[in-house]
Amino acid sequence: MAPTLEGSARALWPDFPRGPLSRYRARASFSGAELLLFLEGEDVVCFKKTIFSALEKDPLFSRSRGADLPLEKYRELSFLQCKRVLEYGFFSVEDLAASPLRVWALIHCLGMYDWSLATKCFLHLLVFGSAVYNSGSERHFKYIEKIFNTEIFGCFALTELSHGSNTKAIRTTAHYDPATQEFVIHSPDFEAAKFWVGNMGKTATHAVVFAQLYTPGGQCHGLHSFVVQIRDPKTLLPMPGVMVGDIGKKLGQNGLDNGSVPCVVPRRSQERALGPNCVGASLPLHTGPRTGSRFAMFHKVRIPREDLLNRTGDVTPEGTYVTPFKDTRQRFGASLGSLSSGRVSIIGMSVVNLKLAVSIALRFSATRCQFGPTEEEEVPVLEYQLQQWRLLPYLAAAYALDHFSRSLFLDLMQLQRGLMRGDHGPRQAELGREIHALASAGKPLASWTAQQGIQECREACGGHGYLAMNRLGDLRNDNDPNCTYEGDNNVLLQQTSSYLLGILEHCGPDGARFRSPLRTVDFLEAHPSILSQRLTGTHQADWLDSAAPLAAYKWLVCYLLQESHQKLIRERRSQSSDFEARNNSQVYHCRSLALVFLELTVVQRFHAYTHGPGVPSSLRAVLGRLSALYALWSLSRHTALLYRGGYFSDEHTGTQMESAILDLCTQLKDDAVALVDVIAPPDFVLDSPIARADGELYKNLWNAILQERGVLERPSWWPEFSGNKPVVGSLRAKL
Amino acid sequence: MAPTLEGSARALWPDFPRGPLSRYRARASFSGAELLLFLEGEDVVCFKKTIFSALEKDPLFSRSRGADLPLEKYRELSFLQCKRVLEYGFFSVEDLAASPLRVWALIHCLGMYDWSLATKCFLHLLVFGSAVYNSGSERHFKYIEKIFNTEIFGCFALTELSHGSNTKAIRTTAHYDPATQEFVIHSPDFEAAKFWVGNMGKTATHAVVFAQLYTPGGQCHGLHSFVVQIRDPKTLLPMPGVMVGDIGKKLGQNGLDNGSVPCVVPRRSQERALGPNCVGASLPLHTGPRTGSRFAMFHKVRIPREDLLNRTGDVTPEGTYVTPFKDTRQRFGASLGSLSSGRVSIIGMSVVNLKLAVSIALRFSATRCQFGPTEEEEVPVLEYQLQQWRLLPYLAAAYALDHFSRSLFLDLMQLQRGLMRGDHGPRQAELGREIHALASAGKPLASWTAQQGIQECREACGGHGYLAMNRLGDLRNDNDPNCTYEGDNNVLLQQTSSYLLGILEHCGPDGARFRSPLRTVDFLEAHPSILSQRLTGTHQADWLDSAAPLAAYKWLVCYLLQESHQKLIRERRSQSSDFEARNNSQVYHCRSLALVFLELTVVQRFHAYTHGPGVPSSLRAVLGRLSALYALWSLSRHTALLYRGGYFSDEHTGTQMESAILDLCTQLKDDAVALVDVIAPPDFVLDSPIARADGELYKNLWNAILQERGVLERPSWWPEFSGNKPVVGSLRAKL
Repeated sequence: MAPTLEGSARALWPDFPRGPLSRYRARASFSGAELLLFLEGEDVVCFKKTIFSALEKDPLFSRSRGADLPLEKYRELSFLQCKRVLEYGFFSVEDLAASPLRVWALIHCLGMYDWSLATKCFLHLLVFGSAVYNSGSERHFKYIEKIFNTEIFGCFALTELSHGSNTKAIRTTAHYDPATQEFVIHSPDFEAAKFWVGNMGKTATHAVVFAQLYTPGGQCHGLHSFVVQIRDPKTLLPMPGVMVGDIGKKLGQNGLDNGSVPCVVPRRSQERALGPNCVGASLPLHTGPRTGSRFAMFHKVRIPREDLLNRTGDVTPEGTYVTPFKDTRQRFGASLGSLSSGRVSIIGMSVVNLKLAVSIALRFSATRCQFGPTEEEEVPVLEYQLQQWRLLPYLAAAYALDHFSRSLFLDLMQLQRGLMRGDHGPRQAELGREIHALASAGKPLASWTAQQGIQECREACGGHGYLAMNRLGDLRNDNDPNCTYEGDNNVLLQQTSSYLLGILEHCGPDGARFRSPLRTVDFLEAHPSILSQRLTGTHQADWLDSAAPLAAYKWLVCYLLQESHQKLIRERRSQSSDFEARNNSQVYHCRSLALVFLELTVVQRFHAYTHGPGVPSSLRAVLGRLSALYALWSLSRHTALLYRGGYFSDEHTGTQMESAILDLCTQLKDDAVALVDVIAPPDFVLDSPIARADGELYKNLWNAILQERGVLERPSWWPEFSGNKPVVGSLRAKL
Repeated sequence: MAPTLEGSARALWPDFPRGPLSRYRARASFSGAELLLFLEGEDVVCFKKTIFSALEKDPLFSRSRGADLPLEKYRELSFLQCKRVLEYGFFSVEDLAASPLRVWALIHCLGMYDWSLATKCFLHLLVFGSAVYNSGSERHFKYIEKIFNTEIFGCFALTELSHGSNTKAIRTTAHYDPATQEFVIHSPDFEAAKFWVGNMGKTATHAVVFAQLYTPGGQCHGLHSFVVQIRDPKTLLPMPGVMVGDIGKKLGQNGLDNGSVPCVVPRRSQERALGPNCVGASLPLHTGPRTGSRFAMFHKVRIPREDLLNRTGDVTPEGTYVTPFKDTRQRFGASLGSLSSGRVSIIGMSVVNLKLAVSIALRFSATRCQFGPTEEEEVPVLEYQLQQWRLLPYLAAAYALDHFSRSLFLDLMQLQRGLMRGDHGPRQAELGREIHALASAGKPLASWTAQQGIQECREACGGHGYLAMNRLGDLRNDNDPNCTYEGDNNVLLQQTSSYLLGILEHCGPDGARFRSPLRTVDFLEAHPSILSQRLTGTHQADWLDSAAPLAAYKWLVCYLLQESHQKLIRERRSQSSDFEARNNSQVYHCRSLALVFLELTVVQRFHAYTHGPGVPSSLRAVLGRLSALYALWSLSRHTALLYRGGYFSDEHTGTQMESAILDLCTQLKDDAVALVDVIAPPDFVLDSPIARADGELYKNLWNAILQERGVLERPSWWPEFSGNKPVVGSLRAKL
């Protein structure tokens, strides 16, 4: 029975209409309202409700999602909605520091509604805004107010047409001219066009542009960022020397205009040849995520000296380069934490998409009936073990990853507070490295889990999942770039494995102890004894708690760490370069290591959270099952290694693990609808006829279909059928 | 060195322009022209070239793919193109029987161009046409000519809103009225609306409708098909009693209009209640695939008695039901082979999509350079082991599955020839069952491999893969329904596992021998000895040929067959019904069994083909590597079972297998571009700027971007930015 909740808390829980979903709701083992408040807290729950209500009441948001609109109309709509969000003033500049969880919630609410809107706001306010604020200094604060009232509109231009992941190879240049005290921003050719830049296609008036900084004499000081005006705010026409364009349709997020500045202006004078000393480019400093950034280019565009964002280095009026950092390594370390913020944001975005997808598929599965024990009786497809096994692990993943994503976001806030107060201590640096390692594998894990989960949900809804109005296609398309931007997933994983291998090499028997600020690697201290562990004599029941997979994961990380370490040593001996040795140690080694370490961290954190003393007793059972299911299901992908390395030896261990996964699915299937009620937004926002909270699957679907324009009309081109009959084979002579 | 080829053969091979891809082409170990002719034969190669040239020269096809067009425009374009295809008369009605490989090639050529066009043609000509031809009799042949000259336009209406996979639960009724010698076609309510029916949305004038046949007195004779006119061919307006509509946008294939006939006409009279004897519904007889069929509904629509497609059963003018079949089981068996044709077609469609995707990703990878051993030198991403491992197995899969798909299609043709000559012998029935089993798991394997492969290719092209013009999004969206229509993949797999379990139960020590017409199950004869096999003392080199994984696959099928059999026995003992016992034996058992059996069959057939005496010696090495790579890579997903069941025991066996996969990737990477040249259509059809045969990645991309409309223009809504500034927080009071 659901525990009694205070009136105010109960008021936050929707009064779900009676209907086909009621029987599952009645069978739930816990109170959805209680779980919601436990997970999110009353403040955030209220805040989200305020945002959703505002959107639902506002006609500008009535035509939800613009995927059916022509490109330009969709972009206009997203821009108008972005302005409206500012008018609502959901948060103030002060909230950014004081209530980060509210900002986090706002982005997720807007994303649940439509990622095009959310990324448009996010890129302008938080990415462009943070880049100016964090990489600049007092002389740039004039831009901040203009950002908030949209006097200017911003974008973040790093990636070039021919280079994304390899930021050192960025070729846009900024030559300083002491005669006029200006920088000359230039892209040498079209391969160096800034590309994929979100908001640049149609809307942005200003860009934070990354370019190689050259001082007179030709010395290159590496990548720096500059504020460059690209359009006239009065007319939205491009500034002289800037040719800016829209790169066209993407697979998703088409309300966002991604742009480019192609270089087709002929050069007026010969540029000084780039010297070979242009190698010291550090990673860019920016604290906002580059979500959605994609492409752009500039041509002898002159900007004032002051528009260099000068936090890591500045140029004096005479042309001398000055920097507060002693060496590039220090500058690099300081930037790692900032790089993480984009990735942490993407983890959160991916989790939102996963939540929406499982909500749609599970409500559908609880109301869609097919086959049954007799000819007369059909059962909801959720009753089939196969359907449970396809969907419930993703529901558990949504909960586990949501917790991880929120906790990592709070870790990041801790790091940023340190940065703001100018902490240069070793713990702060170590914290930056650890968060960097977690975010670099967390983004791949979360974005891939969401991508695979959305696909599974799409298929689990059969043909209805393939109907655009049910939204699973948009979710798949909008989530897809999460696998790519802010670093290709596969490339990013190297950051995490390098971190772990570095720890192994620097610690160990004679060296320092394994210890990190967030304690994610502390267990490695015991790696020799962990590696000698063997699992024997288990019983089925042992696997129904996340403690067992947790222990297996620790062995697995130690095993892969050792294997990767040895592989690298072998490759270094046989290969001509470290470059090749590392490249040949990724597949089956470093790549797996990074993913498994991150899975362990997610499992560990969710296990601790769900088994902690603060969990109300009425929620312990369901949360424990979610934790065990996610852990086991993730671990089951690695069974081959558990056997190969000897941690498993008995045939039964593997079958027990599989049976436990299925048992947990059975235990959770009656809770599934209530668990969805906790994470699903209101119908208006979820916007999927097959997944409305009333469960009236077919009525809602017909309703939506019949409301579409022209659904019953004959096509305008009907005379092409009636009048112009083809003469079969009449064109055969042309072949 | 490439062997000398005859002039005529050489002429069929494109003269690839010199450019960034040349160096890989020069390094290939074989002649692409020779491989192409070996695989396809000169006749098909010429035929394809003729089709591609016709499309390229015809302005109607110049704006390739309509994904950017508004829905109605895209549908009009697809219809006009469909008519044009008929005018070209690429094949005649006679070719359907005489040159089935040409028809197969035509569909694939059209699909490579655009699946909306291909499925539109296919549904009208082959699915609707075949349903009338094969399920009807002489009295229906009048429709055939009308189909070919588009006097009528057809669709295939089986699926209803609330029922897809469970065809027995179809609820549309056809009551015979002897007074007028008519059938009354009726859908009892909106859940019984025909749904998802391809071509029904806007174009179709006639439908093959599946309905429960009732004779006077209320007896139900199960599902039968009827030709029902739904629109007036002169006006394209719906016929009286028919309300037909368009179900709207889908995730892909939007040039195809999927329709429905919703039931909103009030009932004029009380319908006789359905008796409980309405249980004998057999599976529908149709020989064409239902590719793209989706939704539709009818209301007291009267059609002449003769429009019952009467091959399996007829009604006399007086109202007596007559059938040539003695029992429903016999009728069911005869229909199995016909059900397979849709699934075999989808296997072919999936392979086409996989070919296109790997062609795009591999040409991109051979020209995209990122990072390198030194700061100055960047290498093509294809040189990275990680990229090879991500893509080359899918290239191998495209070759292996292509061979399987073609060979299964030829098996199906053998079956259909038997049907046509009225063969009712036991071998014919057994052949029907075997093809049914292969097609029912082949569709899931091929469609999932394509879906995962396209996603991997999308990600492997980074941001450029996310740009719509590069086509990977359309491929993903157009391929997606292959996982669902003609039976949900997961549900379909049960057909194959049931076939295998049935064989095990009927054969065995005292029973008949394991033998099937296509010999795919003959090895099971030795299952006791296969199961006792253990792999020991292998060397790395043993894994470089597909013989080793083939042996492992045989063990694996026997292992899973035994496990599934025992699981079913246990479940039958403990569950209340066979329905539940079967449901609880799918995950980790029957489902895996079906997939692994099919993988074995694909591996076996490709192994035999590539190691056969007819293979030119110059092609043996490359084909052998493709065979080994596909086999090993597929097998490596099952390593856990190989260890768990004891076939593998040594830690090294697993690492050897992994090393062999990577070795094969290294051996194949210099052949990759040439292997793509063999399977990729001309640039005009491939239609992906990053994958043109000249390899000029960035030039082609810019060219495509700058040709788009309005790319450099400011948005029409610019005054919304310049003039209407939001007042931040002005609406806060409304919250």
